[in-house]
This record gives sequence, C-alpha cells and structure tokens, in this order.
Amino acid sequence: MNVQTTQEQLTKALAATSRVASAKAGLPVLGNVLLRTSGSNLLVAATNLELAATTHVGAKVASQGDITVPAKLLSEFVANLPKEPVELDVKNHRLTVTCGGYTSTLNGIEADEFPELPTIDEKTSIHFSISRDDFKQAAAQTTLACSNDVTRPVLTGLYWHTHDGSLYLVGTDGYRLAERKLFTSKSELAAIVPVTTIHEALRVLPDSIEELDVLFDDSQVRFRIGDTEITSRLIDGKYPDYRQLIPTSSETSLTVATDELTRTAKIARLFARDSGGSITMSVDGDASQLAIKSVASDIGDNTATLDVEATASGSVSLNSRYLSEALAVIGSESLTIAFSGKLAPIVMTPDAKSSDYTHIIMPLKS
Amino acid sequence: MNVQTTQEQLTKALAATSRVASAKAGLPVLGNVLLRTSGSNLLVAATNLELAATTHVGAKVASQGDITVPAKLLSEFVANLPKEPVELDVKNHRLTVTCGGYTSTLNGIEADEFPELPTIDEKTSIHFSISRDDFKQAAAQTTLACSNDVTRPVLTGLYWHTHDGSLYLVGTDGYRLAERKLFTSKSELAAIVPVTTIHEALRVLPDSIEELDVLFDDSQVRFRIGDTEITSRLIDGKYPDYRQLIPTSSETSLTVATDELTRTAKIARLFARDSGGSITMSVDGDASQLAIKSVASDIGDNTATLDVEATASGSVSLNSRYLSEALAVIGSESLTIAFSGKLAPIVMTPDAKSSDYTHIIMPLKS
Repeated sequence: MNVQTTQEQLTKALAATSRVASAKAGLPVLGNVLLRTSGSNLLVAATNLELAATTHVGAKVASQGDITVPAKLLSEFVANLPKEPVELDVKNHRLTVTCGGYTSTLNGIEADEFPELPTIDEKTSIHFSISRDDFKQAAAQTTLACSNDVTRPVLTGLYWHTHDGSLYLVGTDGYRLAERKLFTSKSELAAIVPVTTIHEALRVLPDSIEELDVLFDDSQVRFRIGDTEITSRLIDGKYPDYRQLIPTSSETSLTVATDELTRTAKIARLFARDSGGSITMSVDGDASQLAIKSVASDIGDNTATLDVEATASGSVSLNSRYLSEALAVIGSESLTIAFSGKLAPIVMTPDAKSSDYTHIIMPLKS
Repeated sequence: MNVQTTQEQLTKALAATSRVASAKAGLPVLGNVLLRTSGSNLLVAATNLELAATTHVGAKVASQGDITVPAKLLSEFVANLPKEPVELDVKNHRLTVTCGGYTSTLNGIEADEFPELPTIDEKTSIHFSISRDDFKQAAAQTTLACSNDVTRPVLTGLYWHTHDGSLYLVGTDGYRLAERKLFTSKSELAAIVPVTTIHEALRVLPDSIEELDVLFDDSQVRFRIGDTEITSRLIDGKYPDYRQLIPTSSETSLTVATDELTRTAKIARLFARDSGGSITMSVDGDASQLAIKSVASDIGDNTATLDVEATASGSVSLNSRYLSEALAVIGSESLTIAFSGKLAPIVMTPDAKSSDYTHIIMPLKS
C-alpha cells in the first residue's frame, strides 16, 4: 500500500475513529486502527466488537493495500505533524509515515486479523434524518436519566421508539425518567441504543454538520455523520412500559424561573451531602412562595425562598442532584413542577408553548 | 459577631484562603476557615500548620467576634449566592449567613481552637518587590526542576539566594537544574522555599496585581499579594553547591527554533515510551542539521531532521520529557543547546541578548 493524503484530513479521521480502539487480552489487534485503500479513498476504521467507527479520507493511491497499526500512537503522532502532505507506505507489516522532515515506522498487525466491519442493509433499514441541534439537545435531555447498572442492561440504553406517529427518545434508571418527543414519523420503531454509542456519536459530531442520519435494522443502529459512521449493536430486551408511570394530574403545580431554581438547587445540594442529597420543597400557595430546605445535622442547615406561581400548597422531598441535573437540560427560561403529595412522581416540564420534554423524579421519604 | 459585607468580596477572600484548609485526624479545626473581626475589617484565614493564607475584607462590623466554620462548604456556598450584601452572624458557635432569599446556618468550632497565625518582623526581614510577570515566569522556569523526593527535602524546595549582587531562583532534582537570575540586590539571602508555597502564591496571584512583596526572616517566607498573605516555613538544610555543575565550555553548540524543536520533542516522546523516554540528538555540523531519533523496538521508530546552526558535529542522549518541559518555559523564539560528548551535562539557554536563564539536563547512556 502506498497513499498520499494531508495531515489535516488524516488527523480528523483518526480523531473520529481511534478512540474506539482498545487492545483486549488476547486480541491486540483491537488496539489498532485499520487503514485500507478503497478506490481513491483511504478507509480508516476501529472497533471494540460492540461498536465500530469508520471514515473515509480522500487520498492519492499509488498502490492498493491495507494494514493495522496502534491507534493511539498513530493518532497522536499524526496530530503533532506539520500541516503538510503525508505519505503512508506499507512494507512487511510495517507502516512508514513521512511528512516534512519526519519519518516514522510503526510495527503493525496484518489487516486479515482485524474483525469484519458491521454492515447494514440500507434498503430495508428504518431511516431518520435529525438536525444536529435537535440530536444534541434530545440526547443531553434523555441520556442523563439512563442507568449505569449493568445487571439491568435494558435501562443502560436509550429507548428510541415511535408512538402515535411520533419518534420519542426515553431514558430511565427507575429513580427518574426523561422523555423527549422529536418529530412525526410513519415508521414503526422500538430499539434500545447503548448510551455509549450515543456519546460516541456526539463526540464525533462536528459543528459543521447540519444534519445526521440514523439507520436501524433488527439488531444494529448506525449514525452517519458526514464521512464518518458509528455502528453498534442494539441492546436486546423489552423496554418497560414507562407511559403508565407518568401522572396525568397533580395536586400542586408551580412555575418558577429556571436560573433561580438552579442556583437554589446547587446551594441546597451543598448542605444535603450528609443526608444522601435529600432536600424538601414546600410550596405556600397563598404567599406564592417556594421554600427549599436541606438539613445536614453535622454541618448546618439551609433554607432558600423563591417567588413562584403556584396552584396550591404542598410539600415533597427529592434528590438535589437529580433536580440540578434536570434543570441543566430543561432548555427554557422557566419551568413547571407538578406533584401530588409526598409519594407520587414529580413531573417537570419546560414552560414553553409546545412542550416536547417531560422529566420525572421519584420522591424521597422525608 | 455580626458583620455585613458583599458576596463578591467574601467569595474572593474565601477563594484565596480556603483551599489551604484540610481537616487532619484529631485536628478537625484545620478543615475550617477562621473569620474574625479586626476593626472595620473581617479577617479570613486558613492554615495547614506548614502554610497559612490570610486576607482582609472590608465590612460593616456591628459587633466584634470570631468563629471557625468548614472552609470548603462556606466557600462553595458563598460563591453560589447572588451578588448581594451578605450578613454573617455568630451565636452559640453557629454562623448564620443571610443573603437575598437564602439563610444558612453552619455549625462551627470556636476560634480559640484555631492555631496561632504566623508573624514576621517586617523591620528585620529581607524584603523584595517582584513584578507579577517576572515572578510567574521565573517560578515556572525553575519549579519544574524541583524534586518530589521527600527523602531529600532540600531538593523539594526552590532555592532563593543572592550571588555577586543579584537574586537567583534555582531548582534541581539531580537529573536537571534550572537557574533564573532576577535582579540586582544588596541583601544577603540563602533560603529554600517549599514548592507548594510557590504554587499557592501563584494560584492566589490575580492579573490585577502588578507587583508582589516577598519577605524572609530566618525561618519563614511571606508572599504579600494585595490584601492576601501566604506565609510558610522555610526548608531547613544547606542547598547543594550547584554552580560547579554548570559547564563553562562546550564541544558542540547549536541554535534552533523553539517551536520546531518543541514539535519534534513531542513526537519523539511518543515513540520513546518503551525506552524510558530516551531520545538521541545527533548534530551534523557540516550539513547544519539536527537529527532526533527515538527507538522503541515494540512499536516502531522515529527520526526527525531539523535545520540548525551548529559549531561542530556531536551526539548525546537525553530524556524527551525533560527536553519538552524545558522548551515549554524557555521563553524565547530560538535557543542554544551546548554539550560535550555523551557524558557531560547539556546546557540550554534562551537565544536572547541578555540571557537570565540556564537549564541543564544530565545525559542518558545511549
């Protein structure tokens, strides 16, 4: 193999792929990145068997071929080269990289040992186009509620599904739940995408891309972001029927400015460290005031009062970290919090004309 | 105690002091910050017994008094309050902080249990005024060579001393040495300042301060930075007679652009991971070229060639991390590297008219 490309293009391609590579005991080739000529392109790919990242770089191909070399070393090396043409030459399982006054030779592993890259049948797959901004916001709003608990794999994924003709993303860990409605769709989908795949797609997503494509087949999802594709397995299993958990009415409903409640939640959290993060929200409907109290017997206690609009008085305790994290992604200047006594789920929604986001937090015993 | 001040002032004072506080087993009061009225000021102080940070805040003092409260909690709490007046009120070893709609009570420890703050006799002490920029650069250029090895405490400090009528800062760990000349001085000084004290002074130093004062008595140093004072013990012991280690002549001397050598050193370091960071510099005096080679048998090898001005040919091996770190602080567009064969120390100096900086790296066996 002998190809010539530019330092900028190769740096970008390696940044988009090499992070996926990670050598496993007995499988050193997984720590490598695959370089393979493909017509007048150079394919750059890495995989951890669950997730594969591939991209193409325009190149002058003098002779076809392929090799795999340590991903991290090649990526850091190329990133530090001057912005000049780069020549890649393969002989005897060794890759020689030449750029300006630099010549380096990396010992490789032959490409035959690299795992097969996943394929998706584009004709039979379900396909969505999503704007970068919608995807970034929806992912941030929902992945925060996903679980880390590998004993319940279904909850470690983000649930992409259609319902009543719209596409929804949902995350839940059993203590909180976040649902974001995206747009209308005639497809029928119910798929659980690993959160790590979403994070990898977000990491690769450049500001220059306006729209990305998401493709689903029965067992895989592919994010196509410009020249880069992130493909991973879906999580097997049935997602819980979460809709029945969302309360349809409430006893107390209040509207509050997001930035004021954010500050209050942050301060309350400092004082709630000794009490597992528990804080109590008490609404005085007559005075139109919300009091947030944290009690931490060892270090002290804290009370903040905020002016709010409220329908009725009521009180509920919840985890201050969950409150802070929800406020960070609510995406509106004010929000509505609705609850019914100390035991029913607390429902937070952005205070906007068309509310596509619902965040639910289970109360704590107070 | 009852005082009123502003959120901004109190936040700044706590940021400058509270990081020093750290509770030790049996001495919980060291995790606290001391608040004490002093005329129409509020003294804010923290200490870890080695180092004390104190500052003063302008305040309306309604009643005198003092208390200590958890430093980290108070600091984070005040930083998150709205930018409004703050009232501090002490009753029964409890501090109540009121600001806007926020009221918090922190459980304290009485101020009697707080260690006595260090004092320096200003009349008998040796005193220097240093511009912020000089101090920042000189500290960065010299502390990087100080040792972390607590079995040789003297080398974990920065050596401040006068020689031939000038003040010098010196750091060395036995493998490298950095000396920076500051300015002429008629004082006589030989003092070893803990590097942690230098770092704390740098952390507190705001961009708004043009000049800081440094005071030495027999056993202590004080950095006076605006309203804030950092005072610490000096390190006991005699600093090595390092001047005899600096070569006065060289067989090979080369001049090279700092940014090009920085890039080359960074790349060479990637390939030198398996060989303890060792790289070899080979100068070809006739061709005016410097070749930097790293050999890492497992992963590959790397050679870079740079155009340089050189007096003679020669070759020497050194640690690539030391080279990179020295280049990062050399502070000039080009530099001179002088060495004599494979065993003598390598001398790096900025290529400027008045060179006040000398950086020495011991060679490695190649």
